[in-house]
Parts: sequence; C-alpha cells; structure tokens
Amino acid sequence: MITSASNGKIKWVCTLREKAKLRRKEQKFIAEGCKMFLEAPPERLSEVYVSESFLKKEGELETACKERLKKISYEVVSDDVYKKMSDTVTPQGILCVIAIKEASLQDMLKTTNKPLFVLLENLQDPGNLGTIMRTAEGAGVTGVILSKDCVDIYNPKVIRSTMGSIYRVPHFYAEDLCGIIEQIKEKGINVYAAALDSSEIYDTYSYKEASAFLIGNEGNGLKPETIAAAGKCCYLPMEGQVESLNASVAASILMYEAYRQRRIN
Amino acid sequence: MITSASNGKIKWVCTLREKAKLRRKEQKFIAEGCKMFLEAPPERLSEVYVSESFLKKEGELETACKERLKKISYEVVSDDVYKKMSDTVTPQGILCVIAIKEASLQDMLKTTNKPLFVLLENLQDPGNLGTIMRTAEGAGVTGVILSKDCVDIYNPKVIRSTMGSIYRVPHFYAEDLCGIIEQIKEKGINVYAAALDSSEIYDTYSYKEASAFLIGNEGNGLKPETIAAAGKCCYLPMEGQVESLNASVAASILMYEAYRQRRIN
Repeated sequence: MITSASNGKIKWVCTLREKAKLRRKEQKFIAEGCKMFLEAPPERLSEVYVSESFLKKEGELETACKERLKKISYEVVSDDVYKKMSDTVTPQGILCVIAIKEASLQDMLKTTNKPLFVLLENLQDPGNLGTIMRTAEGAGVTGVILSKDCVDIYNPKVIRSTMGSIYRVPHFYAEDLCGIIEQIKEKGINVYAAALDSSEIYDTYSYKEASAFLIGNEGNGLKPETIAAAGKCCYLPMEGQVESLNASVAASILMYEAYRQRRIN
Repeated sequence: MITSASNGKIKWVCTLREKAKLRRKEQKFIAEGCKMFLEAPPERLSEVYVSESFLKKEGELETACKERLKKISYEVVSDDVYKKMSDTVTPQGILCVIAIKEASLQDMLKTTNKPLFVLLENLQDPGNLGTIMRTAEGAGVTGVILSKDCVDIYNPKVIRSTMGSIYRVPHFYAEDLCGIIEQIKEKGINVYAAALDSSEIYDTYSYKEASAFLIGNEGNGLKPETIAAAGKCCYLPMEGQVESLNASVAASILMYEAYRQRRIN
C-alpha cells in the first residue's frame, strides 16, 4: 500500500490531473469513480488506484468494481493519499489512468455514409464540453471535432461530466478548424453554424442528410471567418429577453432535432 | 465608503449569500454582476453595493451600470470588502439585493390559455436549475414550479446561471408537488413525466395544447408516486450506452420540442 503522497507514482498522477501539457506528452488522462472505471475500455486502461477504504465498501457499484479488479493489477493507497489524488470533494475511492485515443476525420467518415458531426470552436466551460459529449452519444453523433483553443477534453471536470461518453464518442482536436470545415464540405456534408444573427430557424433545415453543427464560444459565439467557412447558418429562436442559450443546451437541442428528424419518416 | 468586513450591512449580505434560511426570512436574495444589476426590476431592487475600483471601470456594461446608479442610492465598499461579499473568483464589482417575488399557480394560469409548465422534483444542481430557468424563458414557458426539496433557486450559483431569467420566469415552491399536479390536470393541462422507463417517445405527443413537463432528480429521476400523479410519461430516446441525459439538457430538449410544435402549423 502506498502511504506517502511524495511517492513518485502519486505525484505523477496528481500532475496528470492538473496539467494538460503532461496529459498531451504522456497521451494519458485520469478518470475517476466506479462508473468511469467499469466502462473503461480494457485496452486503454493503463493504471488503477483504489483507496484503502474503497476495498471495504459493499455497494452494488463497488462490488462490480471489485470483480473487475480481480482480473487486473492495481495499487492500493491510503485514504489520505487518495484524497490528494482525487479531484472530487467526496471521492469514491477509485481512479484510473486511461490512454488517450483520438480519431481522425477519415476514421469518422468510415463509420457511416450519413454522418452527424459536432464542431466546437473555443468552447471554454468543462461542464459544457462534458455535457455535449454525453448528449452527442445519446443523439447518435458520429464524432466531435474541437478547435485547438477549446478547453482540454481530458480535464477531470470534462471527463466527469461526460459520464463515460468520452470513451465512446470519436473526437479529435483540429489544428485548423476552418480547414476541417472545408474537408467536410467537400464530402458533401452540410455545415450549419449556430449563429444568433442567422435568418434561418434551426428546424427549417433537413438534417436527414449528412450534417454538421458548428457551435462557438460561450460568451462570444463563433468567429465571423468560421461562420463564413460553414456557409449555412441556423439559430434557435428565443422568447423574452434571453440573449442566448447555454452552449451545451443549444448544441443539445440541435443534436436532438437532427436525431428526431432521422428517426421519423 | 465601507472599509470593514465586520460592518453590519456587509455581514448581513454575506449571510444572505450563504444561507437559504435567511433569504426565506428576509424574502431577499443577492444578484451579482453588471447584467444582473441592469436587468433587475426597479421595484424589486432593494440595495446596491459597488466596489471602489468598479467606479473607475469604463467598459460598456460598467458605463450602463453607472448611468443607472445615478438614479438610485447605493453603497461604495473597498475592494477588499467587496471580495468578501462576492461569490465569484473574479468579481465584477457590483452586487444587488433583490426582493423575492414568487408567483402562484393562479397568477400563471391567468397569463395564457395554453400554458407550458415545467415542474421540477428534487433537482439538486444549481447550474442545472439556472440553465432550466434560462431555457424556459427562451422557450416561452409560462412558469416553473419546484418541489420544496429542490435546491434553493435564490442560491447565488443558480442566480448567476439564469442569466437574468430569474427576474422574468414566474416560479414558486410547491409544498405538495403532487397536489399541484392534480390542480394542473383539473384545468385540462396534460402533465408529462420525463421517465426513462416510459414507452412513449417525447415527440409522439402534441404539446400545442396546454402542457406541463415533469423533471426529476439528477441521479434518481422522479419518484414513482409523482410519475403516477402525472398520468402521462415520455422519454428521450438515446443511442449508445448513455443511461440518461443531463437534467437541464433533457428539460431543454422537451421545452424546445414544445416550442417548435407551437411555432409550426
């Protein structure tokens, strides 16, 4: 059992939790909690740490975790050390190191001939990004593409709010988002920029064909050049004095509208 | 200028920020930031505090605030004192005390003959509640009704994420949510419980007539007795391994589906 927070492994996990740069270098991130451990793809599960008291817990989820732990190697750490490693106020006591797996546009295009993409530009709130990933899986989105100035998707707050969708929704960071938009359009995919000053209400379009939604920064929306690259625009109408919707809500309404249209005839 | 955090007014504001109980007793809450001050209804604006450095700022929002400040009385506090009062990491430097105004079901029913209600049971996350209020205004929701075990809507985190909709979306806490559901149904309003085990997909219903959505707790959903009281159920279909959507996302998709149906013929 590891009982010292100055242990090299523990320090490395703490840095991995805090620094996007180290996550990039090591190509690994931290996922915490029973659900995240249980859903982790075996081939990407690199290390597992459990707290001493976790092994004494007997809840349904903990028992399922302990079953999985039987088949793999893991480290036990003292509760005090675990608290240092954890990002949460009430830690569940299990944390794993996961290998990053980014898709490519080509990978994404291979999976379907009518893709539904979500493109994010300069999204900053970790909770918004996590929620978008979660809804994206629910709505059957083919892949999520992020501009390089978005918040780091491997940030523990993002990981937590994906509720496991991080493992399953293909995604990558684009060096040049406008370049990706061009490539997507060349494949015959319609790209719709969510822009408040658009004249087209979102539900006037058909999203049954290959489509992509482009969502911008929480405060400032999309850059004019990105809107121009998309070519098509749409907006969510709003009553009252609302200036905009929350970015993850706006993205979710668009994704579920596309999903609705694709379900019905 | 107030320069001591032990000043009685300052201590009262801090307690108002922290304690739901005091907010209930005083029937007041705190709203922070330029936007919240600018949109505050004059008749409910009870006190205003600005930091010393706020008065030196010359941004567009700050200038608009200073115009409004000319017409009312307010207190200047030192920057150190302001930091103590503020709930945010980077305080904007303006904070107001607002009188609580709760609607009644009768008030809400008076405004329209085809209301759209949102009923929340045991919602716990402040960000979710704020986001629901914001989307509710956007979707033209008539009113939001909260079970008494929901998070306090006057919590500063909720207020902030409403983006001003707290002032404009009629709302109240119901002592007995099932009793309210009965009253709503007696008025001929369809109540739809969002329940994962429902057999009806949300978009198979028409929400053009008077409707109400019932949304449950983030982790546990709705209580069986509340679902039974509603009578009708609906669910959001989900691809992949998603077990549920974020509560504010689910509520938002339902509200915008109703709004979409009400806009089109």
